[in-house]
Amino acid sequence: MNADASARAIDAVVRTRTGTALAANEIERLVADFVAGRIPDYQMSAWLATVACRGLSRAETVALTRAYVTGGETLDFAASGRVVLDKHSTGGVGDTVSLVVVPLVAACGVAVAKMSGRGLGLTGGTIDKLESIRGLRLELDADDVYRMVDQVGMVITGQSAGLTPGDKVTYALRDVTGTVDSLPLIAASIVSKKIAVGAHGVLFDVKTGAGALIPDRDRAVELARLMVEVATGAGLRCRAVLTDMSQPLGYAVGNALEVREALDVLRGREVPGLTDICRTIAELMLRSADPDLTPADAERKVSGILAGGEGYEQFVRWAVAQGAEPAALEEPDGLPTAECRTQVVADRGGYVREVDPRAIGTAAMNVGAGRFVKGGSLDYSAGVVLRHRVGDQVAAGEPLAVIHHRHGVQPPIDLVKDAFQLSESAPPSRPVLLQVI
Amino acid sequence: MNADASARAIDAVVRTRTGTALAANEIERLVADFVAGRIPDYQMSAWLATVACRGLSRAETVALTRAYVTGGETLDFAASGRVVLDKHSTGGVGDTVSLVVVPLVAACGVAVAKMSGRGLGLTGGTIDKLESIRGLRLELDADDVYRMVDQVGMVITGQSAGLTPGDKVTYALRDVTGTVDSLPLIAASIVSKKIAVGAHGVLFDVKTGAGALIPDRDRAVELARLMVEVATGAGLRCRAVLTDMSQPLGYAVGNALEVREALDVLRGREVPGLTDICRTIAELMLRSADPDLTPADAERKVSGILAGGEGYEQFVRWAVAQGAEPAALEEPDGLPTAECRTQVVADRGGYVREVDPRAIGTAAMNVGAGRFVKGGSLDYSAGVVLRHRVGDQVAAGEPLAVIHHRHGVQPPIDLVKDAFQLSESAPPSRPVLLQVI
Repeated sequence: MNADASARAIDAVVRTRTGTALAANEIERLVADFVAGRIPDYQMSAWLATVACRGLSRAETVALTRAYVTGGETLDFAASGRVVLDKHSTGGVGDTVSLVVVPLVAACGVAVAKMSGRGLGLTGGTIDKLESIRGLRLELDADDVYRMVDQVGMVITGQSAGLTPGDKVTYALRDVTGTVDSLPLIAASIVSKKIAVGAHGVLFDVKTGAGALIPDRDRAVELARLMVEVATGAGLRCRAVLTDMSQPLGYAVGNALEVREALDVLRGREVPGLTDICRTIAELMLRSADPDLTPADAERKVSGILAGGEGYEQFVRWAVAQGAEPAALEEPDGLPTAECRTQVVADRGGYVREVDPRAIGTAAMNVGAGRFVKGGSLDYSAGVVLRHRVGDQVAAGEPLAVIHHRHGVQPPIDLVKDAFQLSESAPPSRPVLLQVI
Repeated sequence: MNADASARAIDAVVRTRTGTALAANEIERLVADFVAGRIPDYQMSAWLATVACRGLSRAETVALTRAYVTGGETLDFAASGRVVLDKHSTGGVGDTVSLVVVPLVAACGVAVAKMSGRGLGLTGGTIDKLESIRGLRLELDADDVYRMVDQVGMVITGQSAGLTPGDKVTYALRDVTGTVDSLPLIAASIVSKKIAVGAHGVLFDVKTGAGALIPDRDRAVELARLMVEVATGAGLRCRAVLTDMSQPLGYAVGNALEVREALDVLRGREVPGLTDICRTIAELMLRSADPDLTPADAERKVSGILAGGEGYEQFVRWAVAQGAEPAALEEPDGLPTAECRTQVVADRGGYVREVDPRAIGTAAMNVGAGRFVKGGSLDYSAGVVLRHRVGDQVAAGEPLAVIHHRHGVQPPIDLVKDAFQLSESAPPSRPVLLQVI
């Protein structure tokens, strides 16, 4: 602890509360003081709680983002000689987009480097999903990352512990002080990792609706704009999409189940909602990489790759290059398969008006697809596969969903059934893509 | 640490930020968890920082006030068979009011029990001032307090460390997390001590203006109202006055200097500003003790006591009963007297337009009358005695103030001189009493 650093931290709390902006170097110093242990947790948490109430200016948010990166490991793809993109989702139930889009874009010739976190709570993490592939290595070092980009044009790996030390200690404190839900703190945390990862551009997929981190649409738009501004301010090529998470995105919710669905999409299956949003995101990424590409050209390119199954081939090539057993992706038994399948059937007929993503996510967690606590173990085969989405017509007795689980695990039938709300008439159609930012 | 308590603390931060009120028992439990060490400092500081931004409802503030008292020592004057009052000031430069009003009210037959803190920074504490009286004991236990009230009708003592444990730990944390300046936190802290001290009523003197804790008048009014509401809600008889601290209250600033000035007022000297506000406060206290007393009766009673010097006799009787050497209050040498007196003279003539209380307070601190750090030692004889107040006319070369200091201590002549701003024309008169609440 250091008296001068503490005095500066106290001053920062008062100024942020009273609306006097902090200079970039003051924010840099505050974070550096915290990382170095020169100020106690209780001063940093007071500042974070104040930010969660009062917000930060754009300039302060950019400064905080840069401060998080300072002193940490960073990657640099300059030596690869190509444009390398990243893709980030704020997370949702059944959000399989990354598993489709990364190989799809890579198959179109644009390199993608994605560093992902693990999931906690309702929304699974990309790393957890991929761990259902036997042999796949997901803790790569920088040299592995560069080599993957050079050799197969894509890489997906867990985040190195050495990235963004400021974010790491700050996030841990936010998590235990009720200060997770703050747009500038969320934006700085996400964008700092993108800067450290060294990609030239990033596509942000911000979810909104009941199953999203930020259910309120206006706030989600604000976060998307903020991330684009902060990342653009840091020199990245950025686009953002606002997408619907008022129902699960695809049919599959659960780790191996989602990998299987992603592979299906890459082989040309049209999954309502999911396939379209993957196309849109892939097209936006292609146009980020090559600003001269017209929307029509991008669409043609993505459609061709999907139709030809080259995204699927890219996925397999990548997985094997990153250590997967060649048989791990072969059907029917390559990926983990659940011991039991329990159908959930409709009590009456009607139109599906709602499929509550939180209830479906909770049901998947309950059978082992998600973690209740950090470090909790997963059943990769477990989860829920929906048979219907909002707008579908169902008859009494028809299956609404299938729960995949182990022997001895009680399938949460009522929870899944109650997640479905039926109505007499067809509800208005609900697009997945709400806005491009 | 306790996981349930932590989860509750995190929930409290989120709810206070998002405007969902906490129930009284939830606030009680939060404070109890913190006092018992079941939640870490960083969670409590996040909640305090959130309160400093978002405020608390009246009901939440009352609950916090009661929570601070829980588990601590409390006094009870029921056995004395009389109404016992307390008086609290938010503190100001040259605020000698308590030293006058407590004996004055006691001489009028109403018992007063005052527990005071020590000063830090520009505004001295009543206990510091009284320590300039040789022999006076200021760390009394509960039995001493009851005996003083029974035998001499008044007591002034430092606060027992066992009062309001919740406030104690919370205040220590607020002090180092930039969360001192929050009206509900200030009100809960002050009122909790009043409840624990067990007086039947309390008169709050809330200062406003440049030298006050809360310079802004509207916020000071809000604090005064809040304290009256919270204390009334806790069953106390309360009044509050809003008084001006845009210049030092009396002429004297410094410990023994202020005691001497208080004794002068009690012997009938009219100190502009100070004498009048002491009368007003004493009258309000008499009417709190006896609601049937008319304003005119109260005024007559106080004037009679002041004119007869009975307040002075009460002060001496009290001081001796509480251990003071009988000679300690005799002039000229009973109270500590400074070795040097340095005059500060006006460079030019004019009307006094401003006397900056912060500059005068800082000058007094610089010569040893105040503390820069907790536990710092004081020179009880040191300080500044003003010769003029706002509105006075002075001639070039006439003394504005006299600095009392030790040999070897540099008198801050320029600081004191610059505290005085002169103008060509007489400024509007500035009353001390701004509002009765």
